[in-house]
Amino acid sequence: MNVNEGCIRTGRRTIWDKAKKDDVMRPSGRKLNEMRPVSMEIGVMKHAEGSCLIKMGETHVLCSATIEDKAPPFLKNTGLGWVTAEYGMLPRATNSRVRREAAAGKQSGRTQEIQRLIGRALRAGVDRSALGERQIVIDCDVIQADGGTRCASITGGWVALRLAMNKLLKSGVIVSDPMIDHVAAVSCGIYAGQPVLDLDYPEDSAAGTDGNFILTGRGRLIEVQMSAEGATFSRAEMGELLDLAEAGVAGLVAAQKAALGIA
Amino acid sequence: MNVNEGCIRTGRRTIWDKAKKDDVMRPSGRKLNEMRPVSMEIGVMKHAEGSCLIKMGETHVLCSATIEDKAPPFLKNTGLGWVTAEYGMLPRATNSRVRREAAAGKQSGRTQEIQRLIGRALRAGVDRSALGERQIVIDCDVIQADGGTRCASITGGWVALRLAMNKLLKSGVIVSDPMIDHVAAVSCGIYAGQPVLDLDYPEDSAAGTDGNFILTGRGRLIEVQMSAEGATFSRAEMGELLDLAEAGVAGLVAAQKAALGIA
Amino acid sequence: MNVNEGCIRTGRRTIWDKAKKDDVMRPSGRKLNEMRPVSMEIGVMKHAEGSCLIKMGETHVLCSATIEDKAPPFLKNTGLGWVTAEYGMLPRATNSRVRREAAAGKQSGRTQEIQRLIGRALRAGVDRSALGERQIVIDCDVIQADGGTRCASITGGWVALRLAMNKLLKSGVIVSDPMIDHVAAVSCGIYAGQPVLDLDYPEDSAAGTDGNFILTGRGRLIEVQMSAEGATFSRAEMGELLDLAEAGVAGLVAAQKAALGIA
Amino acid sequence: MNVNEGCIRTGRRTIWDKAKKDDVMRPSGRKLNEMRPVSMEIGVMKHAEGSCLIKMGETHVLCSATIEDKAPPFLKNTGLGWVTAEYGMLPRATNSRVRREAAAGKQSGRTQEIQRLIGRALRAGVDRSALGERQIVIDCDVIQADGGTRCASITGGWVALRLAMNKLLKSGVIVSDPMIDHVAAVSCGIYAGQPVLDLDYPEDSAAGTDGNFILTGRGRLIEVQMSAEGATFSRAEMGELLDLAEAGVAGLVAAQKAALGIA
Amino acid sequence: MNVNEGCIRTGRRTIWDKAKKDDVMRPSGRKLNEMRPVSMEIGVMKHAEGSCLIKMGETHVLCSATIEDKAPPFLKNTGLGWVTAEYGMLPRATNSRVRREAAAGKQSGRTQEIQRLIGRALRAGVDRSALGERQIVIDCDVIQADGGTRCASITGGWVALRLAMNKLLKSGVIVSDPMIDHVAAVSCGIYAGQPVLDLDYPEDSAAGTDGNFILTGRGRLIEVQMSAEGATFSRAEMGELLDLAEAGVAGLVAAQKAALGIA
Amino acid sequence: MNVNEGCIRTGRRTIWDKAKKDDVMRPSGRKLNEMRPVSMEIGVMKHAEGSCLIKMGETHVLCSATIEDKAPPFLKNTGLGWVTAEYGMLPRATNSRVRREAAAGKQSGRTQEIQRLIGRALRAGVDRSALGERQIVIDCDVIQADGGTRCASITGGWVALRLAMNKLLKSGVIVSDPMIDHVAAVSCGIYAGQPVLDLDYPEDSAAGTDGNFILTGRGRLIEVQMSAEGATFSRAEMGELLDLAEAGVAGLVAAQKAALGIA
Repeated sequence: MNVNEGCIRTGRRTIWDKAKKDDVMRPSGRKLNEMRPVSMEIGVMKHAEGSCLIKMGETHVLCSATIEDKAPPFLKNTGLGWVTAEYGMLPRATNSRVRREAAAGKQSGRTQEIQRLIGRALRAGVDRSALGERQIVIDCDVIQADGGTRCASITGGWVALRLAMNKLLKSGVIVSDPMIDHVAAVSCGIYAGQPVLDLDYPEDSAAGTDGNFILTGRGRLIEVQMSAEGATFSRAEMGELLDLAEAGVAGLVAAQKAALGIA
Repeated sequence: MNVNEGCIRTGRRTIWDKAKKDDVMRPSGRKLNEMRPVSMEIGVMKHAEGSCLIKMGETHVLCSATIEDKAPPFLKNTGLGWVTAEYGMLPRATNSRVRREAAAGKQSGRTQEIQRLIGRALRAGVDRSALGERQIVIDCDVIQADGGTRCASITGGWVALRLAMNKLLKSGVIVSDPMIDHVAAVSCGIYAGQPVLDLDYPEDSAAGTDGNFILTGRGRLIEVQMSAEGATFSRAEMGELLDLAEAGVAGLVAAQKAALGIA
Repeated sequence: MNVNEGCIRTGRRTIWDKAKKDDVMRPSGRKLNEMRPVSMEIGVMKHAEGSCLIKMGETHVLCSATIEDKAPPFLKNTGLGWVTAEYGMLPRATNSRVRREAAAGKQSGRTQEIQRLIGRALRAGVDRSALGERQIVIDCDVIQADGGTRCASITGGWVALRLAMNKLLKSGVIVSDPMIDHVAAVSCGIYAGQPVLDLDYPEDSAAGTDGNFILTGRGRLIEVQMSAEGATFSRAEMGELLDLAEAGVAGLVAAQKAALGIA
Repeated sequence: MNVNEGCIRTGRRTIWDKAKKDDVMRPSGRKLNEMRPVSMEIGVMKHAEGSCLIKMGETHVLCSATIEDKAPPFLKNTGLGWVTAEYGMLPRATNSRVRREAAAGKQSGRTQEIQRLIGRALRAGVDRSALGERQIVIDCDVIQADGGTRCASITGGWVALRLAMNKLLKSGVIVSDPMIDHVAAVSCGIYAGQPVLDLDYPEDSAAGTDGNFILTGRGRLIEVQMSAEGATFSRAEMGELLDLAEAGVAGLVAAQKAALGIA
Repeated sequence: MNVNEGCIRTGRRTIWDKAKKDDVMRPSGRKLNEMRPVSMEIGVMKHAEGSCLIKMGETHVLCSATIEDKAPPFLKNTGLGWVTAEYGMLPRATNSRVRREAAAGKQSGRTQEIQRLIGRALRAGVDRSALGERQIVIDCDVIQADGGTRCASITGGWVALRLAMNKLLKSGVIVSDPMIDHVAAVSCGIYAGQPVLDLDYPEDSAAGTDGNFILTGRGRLIEVQMSAEGATFSRAEMGELLDLAEAGVAGLVAAQKAALGIA
Repeated sequence: MNVNEGCIRTGRRTIWDKAKKDDVMRPSGRKLNEMRPVSMEIGVMKHAEGSCLIKMGETHVLCSATIEDKAPPFLKNTGLGWVTAEYGMLPRATNSRVRREAAAGKQSGRTQEIQRLIGRALRAGVDRSALGERQIVIDCDVIQADGGTRCASITGGWVALRLAMNKLLKSGVIVSDPMIDHVAAVSCGIYAGQPVLDLDYPEDSAAGTDGNFILTGRGRLIEVQMSAEGATFSRAEMGELLDLAEAGVAGLVAAQKAALGIA
């Protein structure tokens, strides 16, 4: 599925004009505002309460949701639930083999940073008092990496979470739906001087400035992380990336709905 | 693919007669000497030098091979290469979530035992001097578990290894093929008093005695691990399990050939 | 030093009007656009090549710079240098004692995330080829915490880095100044429905949305991290926080200059 | 004590004939079916509930049994007890010093594999419901190593366990004896083309195929681990090693009885 | 504050005569029996129940006391309290940067030895039954090091402990004062053949014999640790160092009183 | 062996008179100045370059010496060698089982403190330039503990070291003997108000003040560690313990000579 159309509907003329001019420059041949083909397959792990294999081009992440009867200790007697995430990468998900973190004896700073981000993002879409004192753990394991694994984890993880919530609702364990809105994420960056949507690995490596944008289904912002390594950026550039991200996330939310078979 | 036919061709009458009598007793409805459907899909990880997704029923293992230019230090100046393996399991591969080893800060004793076994088994099928001073790392990651993950890892890992060797041969890095023979593995056990082939999880949990049998394509033994927890077994029973294993591995070797498209 | 005046010079009427109306609401009694008193004392650690004790109100961070003759291995023969950072907190810097990370046997995910951020921010202000193949390590140790420790670490760490660079220049080890521009950081957030500058701990705990903003002396953006926990925010709110941050960082840069005795 | 006689009594002509022909070839000068001198000294650790120093030639292992009032958590309210084992080696038990695992910060995969094996083997000889909800920990520490340390640990560990059970029985804590049968273990392998009993270190290093055989006093099998590194073996060879092992274990069981002063 | 005068009042003629003769030899120009200037500033950490920044010349240690409601488990139902200590050093407290222990993943043997010493020393000055079943944790973090950090930690830690006890007494949590006497410590050593008081780093590195002496306000001994590396010492030398230490500690106790504003 | 006679030869009347009066009070029935029976058996570990099993009553420590061709990195090109020590305790060496440090994943602070002490003590008896750039590692493993394990480790470790040096001398690797003098250690303490020699575990647990004294064969002091937990001591008591220690070490040195068969 190509979610490019979703972007065009947002009608931000300035960017699209520029996009038209420059759309031959991306390594993948994509237009500046074109996402990679997205697919989400649900129910792929038979033991999990919810699961989703999300593919953003060559980036493939397997997301599962596990319902636990207890909330973490710091929530005891608060009536509130918790959603947390863990992130991992198969050693050969990447071009050169990365040492297995279990063998290294610890999770890298990068891994911890990513899994904290995923958990925070998903919690923003959940009414924790409707969930009650239980925890849902979202495991995001990167089977193959080509840039944007944290964004794919959030988008696919939300689908796994939705499925687990459906199960809780169906079984009557909870009565009102804790899911407030969709949550999805996309990366954007300035590649070869142009703002581009949904960076793949070659773009990500070369971009001086890039960002991860997490939004709700209604287009509200949950988290914005923009960063320049060896460069700086302006407020205007920040705005352009945000435009791209809003369009991209709208497309991802549509894809989530399609995967779940909801209107 | 159902490799049951492969077994029947071995024509061990005694077992088959008994099998006919009792074949309604297995939880899965399989006959005593019937393996689960096996499939092996190759080339599933775009970055790896070799890869294979093996499915033994509901047990799914993703195997990849990584070629490294250097052998481990203890082989320096010996002219010999090395094949090693690492094993992991996604936290929700199993019925209840297992703590992520990277988060726990170490690999369990079980994990280390299994990955040592896989490496040892695969090395038995390799002429390490033909490989030369380089190392091939086989990563076996269990996506979904339903018993027999170590055997599936060996059988699928061998396919990934074969593909990596093909790459080395094709590129001219090595000139003679280091692969001596196929290596494949299957578990057998005594379930409800009967010897059965290819235990799934419900059988594995209930079996007083079980074993893992690793054999070559020519039917030579590489490793036999038989173990009774809370029971003991006789030499006669050991022989019956070995009969089943020989037939089972023959079927798996045929499946390896089919996956690789070799006669 | 009260950097409020710096803010007013930017003349963003909308915010200031609102600020005037509401400025009694902050726990500290500060105006919405008023930073805490800032002080930076240099040369406080006799062994370090550069050091700075920064105080942002009751948040006190001791920053030191260490020059190392070698760059990290991945920069070998590139001619490029590196700036990295480590972050720590004394166990009783906070209201209730936090377990010493050295005793716990690892740095928390939060610590690793922060020290990666500090390093990235400072590198954005350095010409790594002018630095040459050497490394400068910035240690940021929080002596007392009252919110905003990562921002204070960046602002004070930049001063320590500047002093170490001065030393390298003075001794003739390097000939052209690798420092491109000032780097400073401040947090802003939405507290009780109002955008406020430079959150202290009571505000930080209560804010639904907050962000860290890292800018250069010329007002270019280096990193923006905005996050909502249990809430979402709009692009308009994002803009308001950015307005506050630009003014705040301008004040911090002025304070850096004052501390270093440069015009 | 030389347990060779025990072997001869089993009267397996085929092997013995071959043994007679070839018995000059072993580095130690032993016959093919000859074990090393075995001794077991009991009561050697004054604090332990049971202890045994077992010597198999130059392999010396100190085994102790500790009774703990509680079973592990997973057995809570099952009425069942547990027997577990830990294994260690003094750094200079071997020819070249091995790094102390406590200093290295973890137990090696080999250590964990061995201690899991010892625990599993000993549990096979215990009626865990007669033991009740308590745990016995068997510590096996290798004082000096010359091959076969895991087998010696099992054989000597069983004696320590027996003594601890005697103590529980005598004190009336338990009323019926949980010990079902003797458990003992021996290694066999194919050395220079011949099946040999009870490998010492020079043989173990050179053997292409070897195995560990754990049996009960009545000759039932508990665990068989046969493995070829850089070789393969046949069912016939497997049978020959099993013949040797049966004879060897019979001798070890006799030695256990002698050490304990039971008929 | 120079506590030298305090020493002179003790009137040990023999040493002072020798001191007069040789007092030009110390790197710092100090007399043999002259301590470095001492200062102790209290109330420097706003969150802690007690705090003290002690400076012994260029050695600066920040000490804090944290009151915890519970005693360690081994004291449950004994009615006794506990005082424990943790010690750390900022990475650039020393001349060359020392690896951060939190990053290294463990506390060094030296760190553990020191913090055990501090805890033991302070407990000797406390009536643990008057304290009741609670714990006071003393954190000693070396901001800058120039020899004698463990002695400074004890002397300054005692002041932080005294302040925390005052708080407990004032709030009525405890009714009788658990503080039996002052505790303070100083190092002495044989430098260039002469006994000297209060070694700084250059002296500490060169001294063949040195010792740490912990005494009470009344001059009773709590701990004596004398050690020779690459040398030996006599009982007479031991006595001379003890003479110096008694005088030095008397001065430190006076400084503690001054800092606390007690007669 | 009872080394009491050695003590008497020192003729310190005051102590002996008191000793005579009170010598029924020790739990073991020993006189105040009476050591436990000492034995040292050499050559007990066939692989080690030197080994000694020392028994001080019920405290048994196995000491081995390993010669390594290289000195530690910090001695590179100094011409100096190194002697270091590691210490361990079998889990059931003590009355209640102590968790195995290898399983716990680290050495305790106590273990590290002890092994640092042993290494420091033995180095004081060695001319490191005569040893040359090599290292000798002394492993001290406590087989059974009844107080005084660190002192026994030093005394027995010295014997193992002496044997390793003999081997180096005999083989011509070194030409002049690096051993300067004997090194031995003993603990003393104040038990029930009386100074006693060579504390066993019941005394050690009850003593308010105790110390470890390490001396050379000529009676020079290497290390003195006196410590009071929950008590204090005077200089006079310190002197009395030192008297006992001098006598005790003299006896141990005689026992070392006897074990080595030197006059």
